[in-house]
Amino acid sequence: MSNPPATQYSISLDVTLDNVPGVLGRLCTAIGDAGGNIFAIEGFVAKGRELERDIVVNCSSVDHQQEVVVAVEATEGVVLEEWHDRTFRMHEGGKIEVLSLCAVGDQDDLSMAYTPGVARVCNAIAADETLADEYTIRKNTVAIVSDGTAVLGLGDIGPKGAMPVMEGKALLFKEFAGVDAFPICLDVNTPEEIIETVIRLAPTFGGINLEDIAAPGAFQVEEALKEALDIPVFHDDQHGTAVVTLAALENALRLTGKKMDELTIVISGVGAAGVAIGKILLGAGAGKVIGVDSRGAVYDGRDGLNAWKQWFAENTNPDGLQGSLSDVMHGVDVFIGVSAPDILTVDDIKNMNTDPIVFAMANPDPEIKPELVGDLVSVMGTGRSDYPNQINNVLAFPGIFRGALDARASDITENMKLAAAKAIADSVSDDDLTATNIMPSVFDRSVSMRVAAAVAEAAQADGVSRLH
Amino acid sequence: MSNPPATQYSISLDVTLDNVPGVLGRLCTAIGDAGGNIFAIEGFVAKGRELERDIVVNCSSVDHQQEVVVAVEATEGVVLEEWHDRTFRMHEGGKIEVLSLCAVGDQDDLSMAYTPGVARVCNAIAADETLADEYTIRKNTVAIVSDGTAVLGLGDIGPKGAMPVMEGKALLFKEFAGVDAFPICLDVNTPEEIIETVIRLAPTFGGINLEDIAAPGAFQVEEALKEALDIPVFHDDQHGTAVVTLAALENALRLTGKKMDELTIVISGVGAAGVAIGKILLGAGAGKVIGVDSRGAVYDGRDGLNAWKQWFAENTNPDGLQGSLSDVMHGVDVFIGVSAPDILTVDDIKNMNTDPIVFAMANPDPEIKPELVGDLVSVMGTGRSDYPNQINNVLAFPGIFRGALDARASDITENMKLAAAKAIADSVSDDDLTATNIMPSVFDRSVSMRVAAAVAEAAQADGVSRLH
Repeated sequence: MSNPPATQYSISLDVTLDNVPGVLGRLCTAIGDAGGNIFAIEGFVAKGRELERDIVVNCSSVDHQQEVVVAVEATEGVVLEEWHDRTFRMHEGGKIEVLSLCAVGDQDDLSMAYTPGVARVCNAIAADETLADEYTIRKNTVAIVSDGTAVLGLGDIGPKGAMPVMEGKALLFKEFAGVDAFPICLDVNTPEEIIETVIRLAPTFGGINLEDIAAPGAFQVEEALKEALDIPVFHDDQHGTAVVTLAALENALRLTGKKMDELTIVISGVGAAGVAIGKILLGAGAGKVIGVDSRGAVYDGRDGLNAWKQWFAENTNPDGLQGSLSDVMHGVDVFIGVSAPDILTVDDIKNMNTDPIVFAMANPDPEIKPELVGDLVSVMGTGRSDYPNQINNVLAFPGIFRGALDARASDITENMKLAAAKAIADSVSDDDLTATNIMPSVFDRSVSMRVAAAVAEAAQADGVSRLH
Repeated sequence: MSNPPATQYSISLDVTLDNVPGVLGRLCTAIGDAGGNIFAIEGFVAKGRELERDIVVNCSSVDHQQEVVVAVEATEGVVLEEWHDRTFRMHEGGKIEVLSLCAVGDQDDLSMAYTPGVARVCNAIAADETLADEYTIRKNTVAIVSDGTAVLGLGDIGPKGAMPVMEGKALLFKEFAGVDAFPICLDVNTPEEIIETVIRLAPTFGGINLEDIAAPGAFQVEEALKEALDIPVFHDDQHGTAVVTLAALENALRLTGKKMDELTIVISGVGAAGVAIGKILLGAGAGKVIGVDSRGAVYDGRDGLNAWKQWFAENTNPDGLQGSLSDVMHGVDVFIGVSAPDILTVDDIKNMNTDPIVFAMANPDPEIKPELVGDLVSVMGTGRSDYPNQINNVLAFPGIFRGALDARASDITENMKLAAAKAIADSVSDDDLTATNIMPSVFDRSVSMRVAAAVAEAAQADGVSRLH
């Protein structure tokens, strides 16, 4: 068994047990012997000749689920009535619903929420379109737009395959920032078709969160939509990741005492996330940034660069370094990985400057396993929840949109992103800040509120708020 | 004051009253003298020197609201602290929200609803797209699509202006049939652009409800989408209206004893609703149908007919009648109006066959006022809630989509619509059926459930269910 048992592979077993001594022990032992980890067991009082139990068991794979089921079925005194995969059961019928915010109990209710009263609101909006931002869901609603071409680490799995991720994102928006978000998964073939479609959809939404669209198309889509629309447009894979990375770096600097403008930073992976991280780091005053992709260091003059990598090449790597990741790691202060598993070696880390900072954020398997790094670094972070210092953009996007909607921002500016990063970093107090605790918990709901306030203030300062 | 006070123009007054005898009486009298109808008053116990009260007053127009406010402000012993228009207040921030159906309390929850567990569901769907109908919101979610070109009786008020109606529709879907519906208001210029956009959006939704799209573009949009998509597509302005009209007619026939195949029926208005009503009546076996538009009777050979009116001309008016509405009303059994106010005269009704049936459904003002008709007709219905026999498509569309989604129907067939009409009609028992009670209440939630069951059964019978 390669992976430890985990909730994502958990199963729920509906079993009937003979009510005689030893049966529950046999069952639990059988599950344990099969490698299953009992996660929950429904409380009970033993009366009568049989007990019905619901037992939740974490497994490590689909095959392992079957092994546990076979072990339970083979246990004397136990009948397995039914079992199900909890992750799939949770997804049945989707993960979000659309609820009414007003009563529809009688004709009086209907005459305000629907005809004839609704016509008064429609006419008011027709006469002054800005009222749609006050009297429709535009005030609080974001579209989560994807074409399904770069979903999680799964690649191009199509718009229907992307739906569960976008629904999951919608619940994070609601849970962490009270933002109503709705998945919009598009059956399209080109970035141009995404752009065209979102422009047509814009009357319905107060903001656009782009998600899991393959680069470089994603850059083109975001640029065009920011230009075309007067509502905030935000590509989370780029900027959400960039914001939390900057927050993590700011807190690592608080710990190590290093200065942003003196840093040399290597970014491994120059796709959507890598380019945005480079950009926000430059905006935050970082000293030297060097990008490395699968062909090595990105430098001005390298052939085959797309428009965004070309921008990156022109604005980073001032010394024009060439060569492999290992070649450019000598003497750098910070490694930021948004690339691929296990591409950073212990020797690379040994070649870094003193007090090195390593954020290995490739998902699910980081650029180097934290176990290998040990005391070689000052601060180590990953994208994962089972290691310290999870750098997760759920800390950023809910609060960023909350702030943008509250300020009725027409755009999300660089200053709004910098403000978000600072608010996240400041959420960890000096007392709490340690090498294994540079980031707030993703379940600390106060973070989104702090981010929202900072973002709204920056929107006002940048003049993109449409509130009077 | 032309209209009686109504909830759609109601205001909420936050007043402070001196706690001395006579003040509340003065205030209520002042409101009454100003023509305001007190709809609600917050209960209270008088302690202290002042009382704060919330009073809801129905007014008859925006100007009248101001008159009532002035009267309240002028009342001795009363201070008006604040007041607001309740219809606009109800619309603030929109009328629907997007809620999570699963807990996101800790890492275990997240690992099923989001990464890493969600990837298992995504991969399953990518391998078998039909699983999206089980494990995403497609199972229960309908898009309410409009371009805002024919909103209520307001005309082309644009997609933002249409939003409050589509949100209202979404809450009716949820309240009456548990269907999650989401407004999609499109900034487009042609029917082709609507078609193209909805096809791109289809991976997100389990059904498409077209709404308030101007004819004849609406016909083209519906036909093309029914052809292109494997999910139910339904233009409510056409078919919702047609279904409830047929239901009303079936019950009027139960009362009068007339036979469907012996009827001569005049339909006034040959737009989206009129064409669909003609079609469903022919499908239900109606004897003779004659359509009349602003240029008079529609007959095969009349010039300037669009494709849908041409279809109508070829399939109705077998005697090729020409002339005005009054010309063709002689001897007809049924008048169905989906056209314009006050175009039917008392003389027209006197010229009808014995036991005439009149459904004057133009909104808000019917083709003839029920007050004028008196005992001249056997059965009279309108679209309004303040007259008997309201013929309202909220009785149809929630249950039709509930049934179509439950059956996982690939289409909404003619038989499914006929079944829906019958289920609505049958919701009025023989005991309850009278000339002023041919339709069930729109607040009788059992109607949608009956419609859903009948529609799902018809989907199975027609072979359009995708359930195994």
